Amino acid sequence: MEGTPLDRSGADVSKLPGAELNTLRSRLCIHTMTTKPWSLSECVQNYEAAGIPAITVWRQVLDAPGIAALAASSLRVTSLCRGGFFPAVDAAGRQRAIDDNRQAIDQAAHIGAPLVVLVCGAVPGMPLSEARRHIADGIAAVVPHARAAGVKLSIEPLHPQYAADRSAVNTMAQARQICEKVNDPGRTDVGIAVDAYHVWWDDRLEAELTLAGSKGWIHAFHVCDWKSQQADSLNDRGLMGEGCIDLKGMRRQVEAAGFCGDIEVEIFSQRYWSTDQKTYLQQILTAYDQHV
Amino acid sequence: MEGTPLDRSGADVSKLPGAELNTLRSRLCIHTMTTKPWSLSECVQNYEAAGIPAITVWRQVLDAPGIAALAASSLRVTSLCRGGFFPAVDAAGRQRAIDDNRQAIDQAAHIGAPLVVLVCGAVPGMPLSEARRHIADGIAAVVPHARAAGVKLSIEPLHPQYAADRSAVNTMAQARQICEKVNDPGRTDVGIAVDAYHVWWDDRLEAELTLAGSKGWIHAFHVCDWKSQQADSLNDRGLMGEGCIDLKGMRRQVEAAGFCGDIEVEIFSQRYWSTDQKTYLQQILTAYDQHV
Repeated sequence: MEGTPLDRSGADVSKLPGAELNTLRSRLCIHTMTTKPWSLSECVQNYEAAGIPAITVWRQVLDAPGIAALAASSLRVTSLCRGGFFPAVDAAGRQRAIDDNRQAIDQAAHIGAPLVVLVCGAVPGMPLSEARRHIADGIAAVVPHARAAGVKLSIEPLHPQYAADRSAVNTMAQARQICEKVNDPGRTDVGIAVDAYHVWWDDRLEAELTLAGSKGWIHAFHVCDWKSQQADSLNDRGLMGEGCIDLKGMRRQVEAAGFCGDIEVEIFSQRYWSTDQKTYLQQILTAYDQHV
Repeated sequence: MEGTPLDRSGADVSKLPGAELNTLRSRLCIHTMTTKPWSLSECVQNYEAAGIPAITVWRQVLDAPGIAALAASSLRVTSLCRGGFFPAVDAAGRQRAIDDNRQAIDQAAHIGAPLVVLVCGAVPGMPLSEARRHIADGIAAVVPHARAAGVKLSIEPLHPQYAADRSAVNTMAQARQICEKVNDPGRTDVGIAVDAYHVWWDDRLEAELTLAGSKGWIHAFHVCDWKSQQADSLNDRGLMGEGCIDLKGMRRQVEAAGFCGDIEVEIFSQRYWSTDQKTYLQQILTAYDQHV
């Protein structure tokens, strides 16, 4: 992938240049899914106008005008979201997943994203242990392609409420075990995207952050909030401060484990998607400053 | 509590008389919440008529006619559900919880229930580690009362989706750690109610069952099913066979760990509550025979 518009792929995602670390605002990234009503071009334009330095791109919003706008902008690309969904009932399905993940890696390289976030997948009724084998095998199969492209692969453990159909990887420990299995010694090709919504309940979180951090496997940190009453288990996540997660405490744990890269706001919320997105972007900035 | 109508409290809940173990049907228990539209009297009458040998009583349905019907019936009382909810923001709240749990123990003894199931509680925004301390302290405070009444206390780990507001105990390991902390050596006063819906996703399940079983701490086994699409995270649980849990496999693991007591059907389902409950009871029997 010569001549990519934003060739930041292959960067050490856990450490940004020191000058950019002065403030938490300099680490702020917004995931385009957070402002779902906007096209990629609109996200680029509005994030940049709001002084937001970084963006994660939902793969489904990639289009030529958006990619051009991104390339012409000053936005840092934090990641491409998402690859994964490796488990399948037959070999052909698993091969399709591998092919699709190679394509995601190429797309990440093309937009200058240093990593692809993996929502690993699950098949309802398939034993989770089997799904995890498919996941580890699938990731191992695409590592060479990722390494050649200078793109890292970041396993996002999903909350156990999604174990049946979205990801059989539901804890930091499971993600770390896959990292141990598929990385060559000393490598960080495969790491972990730590999303507060998915891992806040886990009593092993701090210990696992320390373990993963010691290997350089913390690739990303995502924030939103967990509301105790949710209208929907997928699209009713809270703005930071609306729920029960101690986000400042978790950020400090993540930093103590050695991660000082972008802090990514990723909020799936039908409620907020139905409001004015420019106003919402300002609410996000305020919530970020107060609660992260 | 002299002269209780059904004085089976204090029985070894993990082992029923051999003659009752011949068939899985002889171990079948229905939780009254499963047929929520029915009063306790109606539950007693209809369960008995359907040949169901055992019942768990939702505490809120206890009334004098129901208790009299239960005493006059042949139904075995598996448990009283529920005590718990120990965490509170102040000492007065924690004391109220302790008092309420002592009352639940007395009610269990009165209806001949050998155990009280504990939904341990959580307070949105309170750190889970603090809530777990309140839980362990609260349980420890009521153990003497439970022991004197011949009633056991059974911690039900709830799915992590309920960590914010219903229970800070979300894994078998956490429940087992509390059992280690609050039981006198060799005692089983405090054990675990294993509910398939809450623990099916946990990769530590089999190992923890073995550990808990070796101490006699598996007090109860609850079944329903996890549907990958749920209209509601509380009241849309599946009838056995409708979801993705390998219930036969889990039952065998629970049995291998030494538990051969009642198998309790506990289904929170608005969908089924809106149907004819007698028809539903027959559906439950069929599903139980096929999938448990």
